[in-house]
Amino acid sequence: MEAQAHRDQEEARINQTLALKIDLKQQQHFPKKLEQVETKENDSSPPLHEVETILHYKFKNKHLLEKAFTHSTYCGENSLSYERLEYVGDAVLNLLISKEQFFLYPNLQPGHLTRLRAVNVDAEKLARAAVKHGLHRYLRHKKPLLGEQIQEFTKAIAEYPLHSNGLIDAPKNLADIVESTIGAVFIYCNFSIDIVWKVFGKLLEPIIDPDTVQKHPVTELHEMCQKKNLNLQFIDLWKESMSVNVLINKKFVGRGIYGSKKEIAHNRAAKDALENFERVLGISTSTNKDALELED
Amino acid sequence: MEAQAHRDQEEARINQTLALKIDLKQQQHFPKKLEQVETKENDSSPPLHEVETILHYKFKNKHLLEKAFTHSTYCGENSLSYERLEYVGDAVLNLLISKEQFFLYPNLQPGHLTRLRAVNVDAEKLARAAVKHGLHRYLRHKKPLLGEQIQEFTKAIAEYPLHSNGLIDAPKNLADIVESTIGAVFIYCNFSIDIVWKVFGKLLEPIIDPDTVQKHPVTELHEMCQKKNLNLQFIDLWKESMSVNVLINKKFVGRGIYGSKKEIAHNRAAKDALENFERVLGISTSTNKDALELED
Repeated sequence: MEAQAHRDQEEARINQTLALKIDLKQQQHFPKKLEQVETKENDSSPPLHEVETILHYKFKNKHLLEKAFTHSTYCGENSLSYERLEYVGDAVLNLLISKEQFFLYPNLQPGHLTRLRAVNVDAEKLARAAVKHGLHRYLRHKKPLLGEQIQEFTKAIAEYPLHSNGLIDAPKNLADIVESTIGAVFIYCNFSIDIVWKVFGKLLEPIIDPDTVQKHPVTELHEMCQKKNLNLQFIDLWKESMSVNVLINKKFVGRGIYGSKKEIAHNRAAKDALENFERVLGISTSTNKDALELED
Repeated sequence: MEAQAHRDQEEARINQTLALKIDLKQQQHFPKKLEQVETKENDSSPPLHEVETILHYKFKNKHLLEKAFTHSTYCGENSLSYERLEYVGDAVLNLLISKEQFFLYPNLQPGHLTRLRAVNVDAEKLARAAVKHGLHRYLRHKKPLLGEQIQEFTKAIAEYPLHSNGLIDAPKNLADIVESTIGAVFIYCNFSIDIVWKVFGKLLEPIIDPDTVQKHPVTELHEMCQKKNLNLQFIDLWKESMSVNVLINKKFVGRGIYGSKKEIAHNRAAKDALENFERVLGISTSTNKDALELED
């Protein structure tokens, strides 16, 4: 009630004071097809003003926008690249998601809010938004492998419509440019978090909510073994075979393999163990469905 | 230049639009003496409206303010306690410090900004602000040991005028109420981060800056050993003797003892090792002074 009153007041205030020309009705801007996704390793990125069309937000002075899309490998100087904007944008996004969720879920306790925020601001979530809206095409960089990594990521997310929860590797640079662009808009619009949310709230859809959020597989496996009083071990064979094994009460229950990051092999091992749990151990997993439990 | 223009604009905007009655000239409100510091474990906390005098900020509806100072042990219900406000306040503070530092230190890279932000928002820093301004006296709780912990903390900080960098144990609840109060003001004032900063910027002084920040002793010791190609080991004897030992190239160089938290024993061991480094190992520590290096 009180929360609703606050939201109404806020809404009214935004609508009165926003001098921003955002036509939300037109906000349907996606890259043509995933096959066409590519990044340039040279100067021939498409013109940056197209980003303004994607954002429905105009920078009269393009300086901040240019910075937001410039990786240090491109300009050779940290003072001209996006890192500092990314740092600020990260904090802005964190606040925006916290604020939204505080009012949307008045009975959700901080532990659950924290998980819900984490999956909405992590590298995978932001990289997905970058690819979905084609923002990666404007990143100016000289990282020879990045184009390929983006291609791989784009294929990988097709398997996980919402979020993989740690099972795929998101190119950090894609998440970075979403954060740096948030930072750029925040500074350019004179620090209005309302304007930033108007610009990026839609861009980050679908926002993961208490119904769609999933536990991280490693957390879920730990909790499951604790509840059922089972001994859980992760066996790190990453150096030898790019793999991590899971033993529960000394029984082999799952394996994860991933070459370029041990953490992902670890997460995949947990996921595999969860899938094999009932079959291998003969123990029901009936309690593992609860995503976020509301209070009361 | 551009940053300065933004700051000027912002300043003008705040001064025009703030309907807030803050008389900054009067902002000198401290508890009388440290010996008088105490918290109540019952209903007899001093009246909460005094907090408004400390903050120089008035809540017409006291509901949020009350919540901000209510621990779940007091009300027995999570829905009436400060945890959710604290969650939001934490994100607000993080953004505010990020934003301030972004403009104050235009050449500082994210790695250094991160450390600088961390020491300005961590539990010790916020607990110090709570005690300095006497906010802890208004916390309503039923934690029998908290009063004593606050007394100990108050004595401990006297040894470290600015920040101990991990050597003392800050009662988390003290930091919590600073964050929950930030959350309460943020919501009450309709989400203006400018107003929150007006209220809390002064309260959090002295803000730690690149000249006064210190490396965390564990980081410093790791870096030192890496630079000088020395083998560093922490030997965990906490269960046996509440202590952690440091060996460098198999030589005993330092020990940390702390009963109630292993992490602090660990940090103290690193600090001790740094102090004994030259004497025990006969190797100069000349490179360990650099706090935060500015770019260029």
